[in-house]
Amino acid sequence: MITRRFLLCCAALLLAMSNIHKPASATGGFAPTGSADDRDEMLRRMDERAEHFGELSRRIWEFAEVGYKEKQSSELLRSELRAAGFQIQENVAGIPTAFVATYGQGKPVIGILGEFDALPGLSQEAGVTEKRARAANAPGHGCGHNLFGAASAFAAITVKNHLVEKKIAGTIRFYGTPAEEGGAGKVYMARANAFDDCDVILAWHPGDANSASLKSSLANISAKFRFHGQAAHAAGAPDKGRSSLDAVMLTAHAIDLMREHVPSTTRIHYIVTNGGAAPNVVPDYSEIYVYARHPSMPTLDGIWARIIKCAEAGALATGTKMELELVASVYNELPNEPLAKLIDGNLRRVGGVKYSAEEQGFAEKLRQTFPLDGALPLGSQEQIQQMEGGVSSGSTDVGDVSWIVPTTEFRTATYVPGTPGHSWQAVACTGHTIGRKGLVVAAKTLALSAVDLMRDPKLIAAAREDFNKRRAGHDYRSRIPINQKPPLNYRDKQ
Amino acid sequence: MITRRFLLCCAALLLAMSNIHKPASATGGFAPTGSADDRDEMLRRMDERAEHFGELSRRIWEFAEVGYKEKQSSELLRSELRAAGFQIQENVAGIPTAFVATYGQGKPVIGILGEFDALPGLSQEAGVTEKRARAANAPGHGCGHNLFGAASAFAAITVKNHLVEKKIAGTIRFYGTPAEEGGAGKVYMARANAFDDCDVILAWHPGDANSASLKSSLANISAKFRFHGQAAHAAGAPDKGRSSLDAVMLTAHAIDLMREHVPSTTRIHYIVTNGGAAPNVVPDYSEIYVYARHPSMPTLDGIWARIIKCAEAGALATGTKMELELVASVYNELPNEPLAKLIDGNLRRVGGVKYSAEEQGFAEKLRQTFPLDGALPLGSQEQIQQMEGGVSSGSTDVGDVSWIVPTTEFRTATYVPGTPGHSWQAVACTGHTIGRKGLVVAAKTLALSAVDLMRDPKLIAAAREDFNKRRAGHDYRSRIPINQKPPLNYRDKQ
Amino acid sequence: MITRRFLLCCAALLLAMSNIHKPASATGGFAPTGSADDRDEMLRRMDERAEHFGELSRRIWEFAEVGYKEKQSSELLRSELRAAGFQIQENVAGIPTAFVATYGQGKPVIGILGEFDALPGLSQEAGVTEKRARAANAPGHGCGHNLFGAASAFAAITVKNHLVEKKIAGTIRFYGTPAEEGGAGKVYMARANAFDDCDVILAWHPGDANSASLKSSLANISAKFRFHGQAAHAAGAPDKGRSSLDAVMLTAHAIDLMREHVPSTTRIHYIVTNGGAAPNVVPDYSEIYVYARHPSMPTLDGIWARIIKCAEAGALATGTKMELELVASVYNELPNEPLAKLIDGNLRRVGGVKYSAEEQGFAEKLRQTFPLDGALPLGSQEQIQQMEGGVSSGSTDVGDVSWIVPTTEFRTATYVPGTPGHSWQAVACTGHTIGRKGLVVAAKTLALSAVDLMRDPKLIAAAREDFNKRRAGHDYRSRIPINQKPPLNYRDKQ
Amino acid sequence: MITRRFLLCCAALLLAMSNIHKPASATGGFAPTGSADDRDEMLRRMDERAEHFGELSRRIWEFAEVGYKEKQSSELLRSELRAAGFQIQENVAGIPTAFVATYGQGKPVIGILGEFDALPGLSQEAGVTEKRARAANAPGHGCGHNLFGAASAFAAITVKNHLVEKKIAGTIRFYGTPAEEGGAGKVYMARANAFDDCDVILAWHPGDANSASLKSSLANISAKFRFHGQAAHAAGAPDKGRSSLDAVMLTAHAIDLMREHVPSTTRIHYIVTNGGAAPNVVPDYSEIYVYARHPSMPTLDGIWARIIKCAEAGALATGTKMELELVASVYNELPNEPLAKLIDGNLRRVGGVKYSAEEQGFAEKLRQTFPLDGALPLGSQEQIQQMEGGVSSGSTDVGDVSWIVPTTEFRTATYVPGTPGHSWQAVACTGHTIGRKGLVVAAKTLALSAVDLMRDPKLIAAAREDFNKRRAGHDYRSRIPINQKPPLNYRDKQ
Repeated sequence: MITRRFLLCCAALLLAMSNIHKPASATGGFAPTGSADDRDEMLRRMDERAEHFGELSRRIWEFAEVGYKEKQSSELLRSELRAAGFQIQENVAGIPTAFVATYGQGKPVIGILGEFDALPGLSQEAGVTEKRARAANAPGHGCGHNLFGAASAFAAITVKNHLVEKKIAGTIRFYGTPAEEGGAGKVYMARANAFDDCDVILAWHPGDANSASLKSSLANISAKFRFHGQAAHAAGAPDKGRSSLDAVMLTAHAIDLMREHVPSTTRIHYIVTNGGAAPNVVPDYSEIYVYARHPSMPTLDGIWARIIKCAEAGALATGTKMELELVASVYNELPNEPLAKLIDGNLRRVGGVKYSAEEQGFAEKLRQTFPLDGALPLGSQEQIQQMEGGVSSGSTDVGDVSWIVPTTEFRTATYVPGTPGHSWQAVACTGHTIGRKGLVVAAKTLALSAVDLMRDPKLIAAAREDFNKRRAGHDYRSRIPINQKPPLNYRDKQ
Repeated sequence: MITRRFLLCCAALLLAMSNIHKPASATGGFAPTGSADDRDEMLRRMDERAEHFGELSRRIWEFAEVGYKEKQSSELLRSELRAAGFQIQENVAGIPTAFVATYGQGKPVIGILGEFDALPGLSQEAGVTEKRARAANAPGHGCGHNLFGAASAFAAITVKNHLVEKKIAGTIRFYGTPAEEGGAGKVYMARANAFDDCDVILAWHPGDANSASLKSSLANISAKFRFHGQAAHAAGAPDKGRSSLDAVMLTAHAIDLMREHVPSTTRIHYIVTNGGAAPNVVPDYSEIYVYARHPSMPTLDGIWARIIKCAEAGALATGTKMELELVASVYNELPNEPLAKLIDGNLRRVGGVKYSAEEQGFAEKLRQTFPLDGALPLGSQEQIQQMEGGVSSGSTDVGDVSWIVPTTEFRTATYVPGTPGHSWQAVACTGHTIGRKGLVVAAKTLALSAVDLMRDPKLIAAAREDFNKRRAGHDYRSRIPINQKPPLNYRDKQ
Repeated sequence: MITRRFLLCCAALLLAMSNIHKPASATGGFAPTGSADDRDEMLRRMDERAEHFGELSRRIWEFAEVGYKEKQSSELLRSELRAAGFQIQENVAGIPTAFVATYGQGKPVIGILGEFDALPGLSQEAGVTEKRARAANAPGHGCGHNLFGAASAFAAITVKNHLVEKKIAGTIRFYGTPAEEGGAGKVYMARANAFDDCDVILAWHPGDANSASLKSSLANISAKFRFHGQAAHAAGAPDKGRSSLDAVMLTAHAIDLMREHVPSTTRIHYIVTNGGAAPNVVPDYSEIYVYARHPSMPTLDGIWARIIKCAEAGALATGTKMELELVASVYNELPNEPLAKLIDGNLRRVGGVKYSAEEQGFAEKLRQTFPLDGALPLGSQEQIQQMEGGVSSGSTDVGDVSWIVPTTEFRTATYVPGTPGHSWQAVACTGHTIGRKGLVVAAKTLALSAVDLMRDPKLIAAAREDFNKRRAGHDYRSRIPINQKPPLNYRDKQ
Repeated sequence: MITRRFLLCCAALLLAMSNIHKPASATGGFAPTGSADDRDEMLRRMDERAEHFGELSRRIWEFAEVGYKEKQSSELLRSELRAAGFQIQENVAGIPTAFVATYGQGKPVIGILGEFDALPGLSQEAGVTEKRARAANAPGHGCGHNLFGAASAFAAITVKNHLVEKKIAGTIRFYGTPAEEGGAGKVYMARANAFDDCDVILAWHPGDANSASLKSSLANISAKFRFHGQAAHAAGAPDKGRSSLDAVMLTAHAIDLMREHVPSTTRIHYIVTNGGAAPNVVPDYSEIYVYARHPSMPTLDGIWARIIKCAEAGALATGTKMELELVASVYNELPNEPLAKLIDGNLRRVGGVKYSAEEQGFAEKLRQTFPLDGALPLGSQEQIQQMEGGVSSGSTDVGDVSWIVPTTEFRTATYVPGTPGHSWQAVACTGHTIGRKGLVVAAKTLALSAVDLMRDPKLIAAAREDFNKRRAGHDYRSRIPINQKPPLNYRDKQ
């Protein structure tokens, strides 16, 4: 997930630095309805369970399962939540690794998102400062979703215990959401109405700093364009062949010509996922995998329609047939100001991450392995950065959720400051004690915020009002065709 | 016209050299019905008129008028033929410079083709051995059509005189055919049925050697693909623009990808005739001019249909509109063996070109200005080369005539051996005495052959039989749309 | 010049509308040292000469001479200034139409820029509301430089009279700067040190609204990349040819691929200015004309270096030779806040443009011929818009001047609100009374501001201070090679 | 291997049909020195071993091991030859699956080539008439090399027995040559001097007809061009990335542009073997795999040098680095007329393939699954086709051997007439009894011819003379760099 990587990198945009730990009441203006003691006690007890959830995150880190293949990771979280008394709805939206864990009943319904998919090819030893795969070409948790899932489950269970103990009415949910990395799992869960009855959704993401967020993200549509030609011996009868690869080449060229004629905030990128089987055969099957992004979904629709025409033209000119598989489509994220302020306050209450001497040494060495332009300084992991607005340059399927339910997302410093996302360095952190410390900050912030929302209906009303205002005049309608099933095998090699 | 240039250049294909002057009767087996005296006398009288027609060719050389713009050249030939007693049909096929000059009546009808268009940008002084334009960027007779028209008129008038003198029945025709170089004038004349009642058509072409021919040529279709986009300021609002130049780029790329998937004997070539008006404006109008050729018109049809799809794809991918103007389409030439043998015999009777000492010096110096790989040696202009078969790599609108009437075409040495066609060196020859000597060889061969055909119906019957055999199973149908007018302004700059 | 067209169009960015005519002293804080009477009198006298300079602008409009070919236009302005007592330095920087007209002596030296070149292909009748060329394909004043030159000369002469009358010391200059539209005339004049001793430069530009400006513009480098290949008959011996057009195609493709990998604020655009001579000849000469722009010259340098590599690659891959002619290079414009405030104040003193009933009717009809999205409403021509910052998407050779001398530029409403720049509609206005009214607003504002600067050294000091601050750390060094002569024939067709 | 597939397909070139079984002495003029009885007896004994070698071919068919990975196949052949008394030289040229099996001593040395590699993705059940993989995506023997290896071993062992029995002096060799399909195994064996002391090399190839051959093949150079760029997040910082895929795109475009400018007999084809890892990352590693072919190696050198420039240009324009791995280079095959005549005679002595009723039924049904244009009729497998000359459109590493030692190659009808090479239909035949019958024809023809050569030094002398004549003026020098090791992993997926 890119959003947070960007929050990390774009130091030029960060006001940063000046944050002083203030009491939550001062920043957000929301008066917690429980006594301070209640919440301090809750945080204290979380410290006791931190080791357990740290271990849990490590096991998911070791599973390192890619999108829609997270069988062990999903099962581990399910069994943890089941043991804590949650009701588990499995196989949500026909996805074996998607689930919803629910405790309690009635309003309000507060959902916490949890992700757990790994990234292909990023296998890496933890806690070392050089690139060293645990298993060649195997996946790795370069986006920290092992921490994401574990911290969110940690928070959900904590909230449940608090509700029970304090006899507070309402429902707490944990959403086990697979395949965030390109698989758009939440979009299919949304289509199955999994989020519809929530009042608020809380999410976070691993990062290299701690902050609440008012940022939006890029809407994204991605698809595989497949071309079917006519094979022929490339030396003996090339005139009998119709090359599917020619169609890919032409489609790509058309897209590259189009770059001049789309708004500057557009992003289009592609790879060739199948470029022919053997040089001596005119390729009869080739594939190009294209992403297009823009801050606004309606604008993206127009751009996407033109990309489809590029591919149709590729087929037309080369005498081949084009077949389109829409892989994913996610909305831009709608920020929510009241929720972001709530998070900001609780983050400041919880505080940042403190390194041990050994962790400090690791961090210093790791920072020598990537460029530090614009990176926050070492030590910044102890602080809470100011909220930022604008549009991040990434995309996430949290975007779709945010168009259905008031949603907020924040980050904690699970990586050494400056660490690029989707890097071996990130994997080295997310399997390390540094990652677990960030996990605890996240879990505590989530738990505090959920409890605040449970206790204060005005918070929820304010979040809903902001949500209605931002969404005004726009429907949510996923661009994924209604009859399209989740691409459960999108990570398989062609 | 490329056909002959190729006969010149492709020495590898020439058996050459071994030709011995044999009496015509020995080679073709056709016994001329006139007495030897008759014909010797005719040739002798032609020598007396040679200076006059040489001067006439020089005037056309100086006019140097490009296709469909040959007003002075056409008028000069018309007045010469009118003065000789020919009936002139003007404005044939709606072309101001096309005409048919007819003398006599009844069968047989023997036609002689005459061309007179120049080539853009080839202006050159005559008789000099360095590149030196008479007028910068002006046209020049790099294909020797000034000689072509003058020699053919010379022959037609000679035949007319012979018919009158010898009281021979039949009709002699001179076809004033404009715009051979890309304008396909004869195709429009054919559509106006100008050749339908001929029994035989004789044609020749300037070259660097003397020979009859059994070669075919390449069928050719050419068109301008025009793209209409949406202009916009290229810095201020490029996303508002739809670039017609993008469409050209993509169409060209598609065509280049197609090269692998057409038969090896195909030729496709293009230029960009309009690539935008100003860099700071997204081009809303661009044009690409494409030729496609193949030895067989039906095969070319399939290739051409694919090229159109390339251009449609160019428009589709770029959001522009495509407009197609078919510029020309000519058939491959059907050779005719009895006619080629008749020409071969008469060429050998007439003999080649003898240089004066001064001409020899000019030729030696000129040959230092071009590569001589595969060129015939100096001196070969005195000989008659053997007939060749195969397919030349050029195209000519004589091709269309050859599908309607039994037609033959030969070449004489109007250029120094080895001279490339369409070169300044060719222009330097066609305005020079060397060119005029080749003109006389051509005129004599045409006159002898026409007279032979007038006198011997069996020759005509044999030519017809060969024609029927070669054309069997195929219709002639020009690919130029029936409602398309001659592109009288195709040489105008955009 | 695009800057102002953009100011007009980007209404979304305009706060606009709320401007109230306030006394100059209130807005800028600069107290004019002359008495109010002085200046009112000066403005009144200008009204008397308005007709004369309007006529002068109309004559230049009719000359409609393109860049570096503005012989009559330049001569007309020179003779007017000469008659008014200015000393004329002609043939500045070796450019026949560039001149500097000077009156007075000593400090301060205040320069006023005047442009007068027309745009190719924009010929149009004045005052009509449909596209109707005066002469087919002829140039037209689509950027209003006829008004630019005339108003600036009007102002310079007015200032000279004022200096004489009021016995004020100092030097007033008029710069006759040719070929703004792509020819970068001012860059060559700058190289010849023509601006070095000025204290302040004032400039304006025709537009569809009245406003001072704090905008920057895009630095721009443009060049013609010429490829030299090997000609060959495209049907007969294509393997012997090396296509210069192939090199163009490849270079263009490389540039289009590069678009993804440059900052979003970059603009690159090209046209194909020579795409081959004839389809049946492998092109041995082709040309692509490329512009690249970016808000920062050092960043643009890096992009430009990569574009050159694209062209080198085009040559390398195709076996051709690449030759680079740098056509122009202009800097981004440095705004100047004290000068912009001075202009803003004086503009508000002068006031906007009032239409007669007939002009109102014309304006209403004209506005039906272009899209009005984001356009200012009719009536806005009477107001003064607020100053804007940011970066316009155009480029101008005023940019180079602004790196040498503190410079400001403003616009007046010479076009009907909403009129696109470089359009027939703009030409219809710049030859019409509406254009002349905008001319008078510009001339008065220039004259007032020059007189203010003459009288108040603090204004000049403040302008210098702002200039030094903005330029800090950067040298001015034109990217045009020191030995390159002005491209006096850049508008000639290839 | 394509050569024979082409022999099969190009029926237009086949005179065919008229072949009558004539005694060998009549066709070739070579009088066998053994008595007819000797050789009849040898053939009769071969019938007794046919089942055994058929089974052996089936086991290799089931192994279906791709180039350089033929461990079991190679070991099976080695053990068979070892058991028959041959000396085995293993690991020839550093290739684990390459070996030379030798029996006897002294001159003459007659070599027989044996191949055994399978083709990726062609897994197919034997003897069925529909496409049905034995194992999805697994390799299959679509070129019949299982038969090739087994028949050649069968022949070698037969010859050895004959030498022993008849006490004939000389050496018989079996060459176990891996990775013909793109790996060029023989080229590395040649470099290790494995063929240098042979007098004659005999080879055959599975096909759909029986015939000796005078054909040449295409010289071939192939390489993987690898581009190394700079990864970056494709949405977040595309300007920081340098795309290796862009380099591939541009290189491909350059090659496609080049197609117009190479001789028509050239063949260039490519696939994209690595087109990026994920769409949201600017690819830092991409690969294009290119073949180029031409009938003449020196001409191919020039073309290849230009292809390298295309790839260099791809890197230059995109700011990436290019790395070239030459995968293979094989020479065009030198035919040998005396050897071809010897084969032709012995093929006619052996006779073709007779189908059982069941095989006939299979053949009839199979022929309904592919186009029959130009295919030989069913029944033609019983005949011996006339030898053909010309140039096949395929390439083979037998070509390199043929430049070192006089070599001939023939085909037998192991596929149903008309079966395309490299097809599932071919696999269905090569694992079927039909394939085994063709195996026997090949083994007998090889054995007869080797024995003839052993007995008649004049045959060897005539072969050598023809060889010297055809090779005159040309050296053999492999284009594979001397320090390049065999690409033992060329079949591994990237």
